[in-house]
Amino acid sequence: MKIKGTFLDEISHDIPHQNWGREEWDRDFDFMKKAGIDMVILIRSGYKQWLTYPSRFLQKKMGSWEPPVDLVKMFLELSEKYDMAFYFGLYDSGKYWLQGDYEKEVEINHYVIEETWRSYGDMPAFKGWYLSQECSRRIKNIIPLYNRLGTHCKAVSDGLPVLISPYIDGPRNVSQYTTQARKESGIALDIHRKEWDAILQGIKEAVDIVAFQDGHVDMEDLEDFLRMNKSLADKHGLRCWTNSETFDRDMPIKFLPIKWEKLWRKLQLAEKTGIEQAITFEFSHFMSPQSAYLQAGHLYNRYLEYLNISHRENN
Amino acid sequence: MKIKGTFLDEISHDIPHQNWGREEWDRDFDFMKKAGIDMVILIRSGYKQWLTYPSRFLQKKMGSWEPPVDLVKMFLELSEKYDMAFYFGLYDSGKYWLQGDYEKEVEINHYVIEETWRSYGDMPAFKGWYLSQECSRRIKNIIPLYNRLGTHCKAVSDGLPVLISPYIDGPRNVSQYTTQARKESGIALDIHRKEWDAILQGIKEAVDIVAFQDGHVDMEDLEDFLRMNKSLADKHGLRCWTNSETFDRDMPIKFLPIKWEKLWRKLQLAEKTGIEQAITFEFSHFMSPQSAYLQAGHLYNRYLEYLNISHRENN
Amino acid sequence: MKIKGTFLDEISHDIPHQNWGREEWDRDFDFMKKAGIDMVILIRSGYKQWLTYPSRFLQKKMGSWEPPVDLVKMFLELSEKYDMAFYFGLYDSGKYWLQGDYEKEVEINHYVIEETWRSYGDMPAFKGWYLSQECSRRIKNIIPLYNRLGTHCKAVSDGLPVLISPYIDGPRNVSQYTTQARKESGIALDIHRKEWDAILQGIKEAVDIVAFQDGHVDMEDLEDFLRMNKSLADKHGLRCWTNSETFDRDMPIKFLPIKWEKLWRKLQLAEKTGIEQAITFEFSHFMSPQSAYLQAGHLYNRYLEYLNISHRENN
Repeated sequence: MKIKGTFLDEISHDIPHQNWGREEWDRDFDFMKKAGIDMVILIRSGYKQWLTYPSRFLQKKMGSWEPPVDLVKMFLELSEKYDMAFYFGLYDSGKYWLQGDYEKEVEINHYVIEETWRSYGDMPAFKGWYLSQECSRRIKNIIPLYNRLGTHCKAVSDGLPVLISPYIDGPRNVSQYTTQARKESGIALDIHRKEWDAILQGIKEAVDIVAFQDGHVDMEDLEDFLRMNKSLADKHGLRCWTNSETFDRDMPIKFLPIKWEKLWRKLQLAEKTGIEQAITFEFSHFMSPQSAYLQAGHLYNRYLEYLNISHRENN
Repeated sequence: MKIKGTFLDEISHDIPHQNWGREEWDRDFDFMKKAGIDMVILIRSGYKQWLTYPSRFLQKKMGSWEPPVDLVKMFLELSEKYDMAFYFGLYDSGKYWLQGDYEKEVEINHYVIEETWRSYGDMPAFKGWYLSQECSRRIKNIIPLYNRLGTHCKAVSDGLPVLISPYIDGPRNVSQYTTQARKESGIALDIHRKEWDAILQGIKEAVDIVAFQDGHVDMEDLEDFLRMNKSLADKHGLRCWTNSETFDRDMPIKFLPIKWEKLWRKLQLAEKTGIEQAITFEFSHFMSPQSAYLQAGHLYNRYLEYLNISHRENN
Repeated sequence: MKIKGTFLDEISHDIPHQNWGREEWDRDFDFMKKAGIDMVILIRSGYKQWLTYPSRFLQKKMGSWEPPVDLVKMFLELSEKYDMAFYFGLYDSGKYWLQGDYEKEVEINHYVIEETWRSYGDMPAFKGWYLSQECSRRIKNIIPLYNRLGTHCKAVSDGLPVLISPYIDGPRNVSQYTTQARKESGIALDIHRKEWDAILQGIKEAVDIVAFQDGHVDMEDLEDFLRMNKSLADKHGLRCWTNSETFDRDMPIKFLPIKWEKLWRKLQLAEKTGIEQAITFEFSHFMSPQSAYLQAGHLYNRYLEYLNISHRENN
């Protein structure tokens, strides 16, 4: 089971920024490529007033702020340089869809999708879309939200693939702003099955790939959930990946790189269930040899050993 | 808008120590100077039993502990070496002034001020005083506390300037010992105006410079507060700086270096309001190329780019 | 007062893993040795399903998971290489002894002790045992638990020494999963005396060394507790060490390396009370020049200066 893609966590909800410039990002794409990663996913292109690219629409419509650099352009250029696929994460209002007003979220994103495609659609690394509105349960209007967002992405881009990465409402689904590391009980496997069966049934024309996050469930229950996710994706004709998180959810410091043994175990479990490949949240903080968290570079070395690549030549 | 000064966070309430010796401090002053910083402010010279210098008075009176090195002497020597101004932060009892017994806090600090001036007053970098008793609201007796402290500083030192750096009771004014990153609501701008109008009116003979901390207010409200602070300082004849914090208040890890985009935005807003200059809390953990937090070195590089200084020559 | 031993925090409850391979561990033992450390203590060999060595018994009996490497073997080999003593920490079920079922905890560990001794008992660095079930108070059945564990360790190993490292129920004995850094009040010295007098009386045939953790008590009360612990150990004929923690318990980030001044002060207090030597929790995260926390390397340098060893030659 190999990690073939990584999120790019701009704009982050909870991971402190590394303040990299183009030089550091260029080097990071090189590190990714050497570890076999050939896909990057911008987790969100905008959040509330913060932007990753100078969207005229969002500055006008949402009062968003001009960013200091155009990260979308830079990531597309670096993806091209390193022969990687770039997936563009949609704008997250941080409110409308959470309040059930999915139509407003859709309306804004229709403009974002069109503006983005006009600005960057001819760049060769632009290979897909990511729906940034992550959920774990069948919350109100999630089906029409995903349907209309994914359908519009495909319509403007001649059918480029659409990815979602939901989480599981497991015992580690707790706010990053509590110190608590787990809650009493997580969702029952059967409830998870029922809700996601309905969601995948409802969105299968609009979404191509589902990659559940693997960090919210206790290790002893993970295999059951991976297997369930795989069977649901198969049933509805979606590709099934695992988003194998590379940070630790069970430590008081939120969040540092995961212990290799845990990642190794999660990858093995995913392999057993026949899942196609892994992506991760995310390489640059938690696996990169140049991460501010030095544990990450050691995780990179352990992962390369697992791939039978010598890290002594590489970094 | 340039950052011209930084706090030295000894003794810290909440930032883990870097365990630097003189060699590392010397190098850090050099990094500061190259980034245009020409002023350092010792945030407090003593806190409860902890001391930054071997105060005989505080060891005797407060049972304070002999420190392993004389940081005040070292910082004064390094300030002189790098042609920087040193501001001495007063002793914080951690109790008297918080319990409303400002006279006791004043009494102890009168001795501290005199002892300090006798010990270090002839060192050429000694250029000012910092009142360590930080507040955000018109708490009981804050006016006579600041008045009597500032007046005595000036009296013994032939009028050296006195600095305060209050905070704003905004939504991010939450304890660093909760994981919560914000509270429901912050102080209304008008209440802030009324309280600080009265405070500045009451202390204007004893305090020369006010530099409000800029991190407790939501970004969308910051300009209003900066503008208000500037107009209040102007009204009462104080110099107005901004204490542009270089750490992030909205992340679960408390606290790591700020995202450059946020600092950049805060500096731009301060510039718009006509504030004279910025200082920061603080360089050595959050902006220094040798910080234990490697994000800090990248922030340094981004800041030098903003100043149009090439960091490739510098570090 | 010198630090002569360190824990090896595998498997950790609360310190994120550094993801080191054999190369990094080899280098770390070298760093330890140069700082005068000649003893390492594996804090626990297994916890619930996680293992440090491929125990057939625990995989079969407890459903534990095969680990990626045999850390016990590696640590024993490195201890031999650097002429250090290795203490083996027992298996912690994470439940039985905490629920008062000490007999079940003992039964499992009897097998673990025997299996361990069969596998590694002839390796020359195997010099002692550590009872991983840490407590601060006279909880139910702690005396028979320690007695039966320690007795069996000694029986199979021809009397190798047994170490415990309890903590004090002081104001800093708070969950690492709250952000709170202290509670209102700690245990009274007299209650501590009564409970530990009874415990040491009850376990003195089975346990050789007691090294109380020194981080849960306020600095102003530490000397009294150190003195009490020393006198209780003397009374019952145990050797008394101090476990001088090298991480900070009073910062919002849980946990980073301690400020040198605090460690320096704690070591001085231990020396005053006649305690024999110090061990620490733990070197590799909090004192090592290659720690992911760069403050640790500076702490190492400060500690070497205290020992009058030049760190410029060493790292």
